[in-house]
Amino acid sequence: MIVVKPTEQGVTAELASAIDPSGYLIKPQPEGSRLVETVKGLDWEGNAVDVPIVVERPLTVFLNGQEIVTLMTVGDHPELLAVGYLVNQNMLRPDDTVTAVDMDEETETVVVRTARTTDYEAKLRKKTLTSGCAQGTIFGDIMETFDAAVLPDAATVRVSWIRALLKAINTTPSLYMAAGAIHGCVLCHRDRPLVYMEDVGRHNALDKIAGFMHLAGVSGADKIMYTTGRMTSEMVIKTVQMGIPILLSRSGSTAWGVELAKKAGLTLVSRAKGKRFVVLAGAGRVEFDLPAGAD
Amino acid sequence: MIVVKPTEQGVTAELASAIDPSGYLIKPQPEGSRLVETVKGLDWEGNAVDVPIVVERPLTVFLNGQEIVTLMTVGDHPELLAVGYLVNQNMLRPDDTVTAVDMDEETETVVVRTARTTDYEAKLRKKTLTSGCAQGTIFGDIMETFDAAVLPDAATVRVSWIRALLKAINTTPSLYMAAGAIHGCVLCHRDRPLVYMEDVGRHNALDKIAGFMHLAGVSGADKIMYTTGRMTSEMVIKTVQMGIPILLSRSGSTAWGVELAKKAGLTLVSRAKGKRFVVLAGAGRVEFDLPAGAD
Repeated sequence: MIVVKPTEQGVTAELASAIDPSGYLIKPQPEGSRLVETVKGLDWEGNAVDVPIVVERPLTVFLNGQEIVTLMTVGDHPELLAVGYLVNQNMLRPDDTVTAVDMDEETETVVVRTARTTDYEAKLRKKTLTSGCAQGTIFGDIMETFDAAVLPDAATVRVSWIRALLKAINTTPSLYMAAGAIHGCVLCHRDRPLVYMEDVGRHNALDKIAGFMHLAGVSGADKIMYTTGRMTSEMVIKTVQMGIPILLSRSGSTAWGVELAKKAGLTLVSRAKGKRFVVLAGAGRVEFDLPAGAD
Repeated sequence: MIVVKPTEQGVTAELASAIDPSGYLIKPQPEGSRLVETVKGLDWEGNAVDVPIVVERPLTVFLNGQEIVTLMTVGDHPELLAVGYLVNQNMLRPDDTVTAVDMDEETETVVVRTARTTDYEAKLRKKTLTSGCAQGTIFGDIMETFDAAVLPDAATVRVSWIRALLKAINTTPSLYMAAGAIHGCVLCHRDRPLVYMEDVGRHNALDKIAGFMHLAGVSGADKIMYTTGRMTSEMVIKTVQMGIPILLSRSGSTAWGVELAKKAGLTLVSRAKGKRFVVLAGAGRVEFDLPAGAD
């Protein structure tokens, strides 16, 4: 049983020990990791090959006495994933204090404990009878928060920062480099990547960052979020909920993702690879600080 | 209101009209499609550019009188998605007869009607009180079906078929080619792609194929499934449930995906691009019919 308790500074002991003075606060730990296994396979000519692949295991999340969900995850930072999932589902509010997160490795269960009892259990009991599944209920709540969110106009992102971030992130040893078949999300400040999380689902990676921000008391207002995954409506909604004004992706967006970004005033930078990208929403925050044709 | 009724042959009128004699039974329709919109953006030097992106819209699925779920989807083939979702969640059993699928465009709602009333509503009512969300319940049921599934040993896949399939699929005009940020799944027979579905989530694309198979009465026993997405546990479970013995992916697998594939006797072909791939499970079904070093 690992018990993670927030310290007085608002940063957990485990997080503090993970701080890397070279740049990242938290970065992937691919070497010698229990997150990658080697499987024996055959190549296209029938030759035996060793193939590194990421693990995937269930994690059941409880909020106090209430079982909430079983997530499939690569398995690192379960406490951040659990807290971030609850935050991004609006089951934990920004002013809810997490008093402890108890992880039981054997039963693959994590219990998030809060100072005050939340109203989630009562809500769930009331609404599932009419909505068929909690998903409807949760989605309704999320849109209320989304509509109320205000992102800071003053935030900016420079083209030179985007280039520096892409270079730094793409050269960081990661599970993606070691085994592939995984998504990454990186919380960034100006041209510095701060927290790099990976998971089998892009939502889990983002939720782990939300968990870090909630436990460490980090504001999203001056941050940039990078994701390897597509910017669908849910990714846009979560980024806005996290108070982050700029979302940067190696991949593309859906039309509804763009529409929601415009509605919320979120800057959406799509297809960011090497030196290239396309701004799909909130272009007012982008400073084109490099001369045309610059290398 | 579009009403799709299975014909006596077991193929719906809409599906029959979509049959393409050149090879595919159903293939993507990217041209002039309402599935792609053009958004005005700025490139990395601040120049205005037109960016094609896929749409994403909610679809609420009812099973008879019971609201089940709201899915985010690109929006084509809603009747196949609804039926396939219910089949893959074990809410529709193989012997359930779908009497009609009613799509209401205005409310973005699709109602799947069955000959006999299912027991899903009662199950949901009973179990949500203890499990917190229907997801737990559904997962439990799915593992029962998964454990009972038997895939045919006699099925084979030749290396020459894999090459032909990859070439045919990758040269088929698709939403992926037109706009990106979308996943595809293709139901194949030997070296012929039959049904090519795309969606913002790889699960939706697979569910649409499950819907086609259920409505058209198509067996999975002699089929090959191709997916652009990662082979996670859920993708493996769904493929096994659909009775398809061979799963082929452009992307990688997770360790649990491989473990489940081995348990079910599913052949898993990973990282299939151009001429290369790696067999991670069920290699006994692969016929290496090309000479070593063949182009």
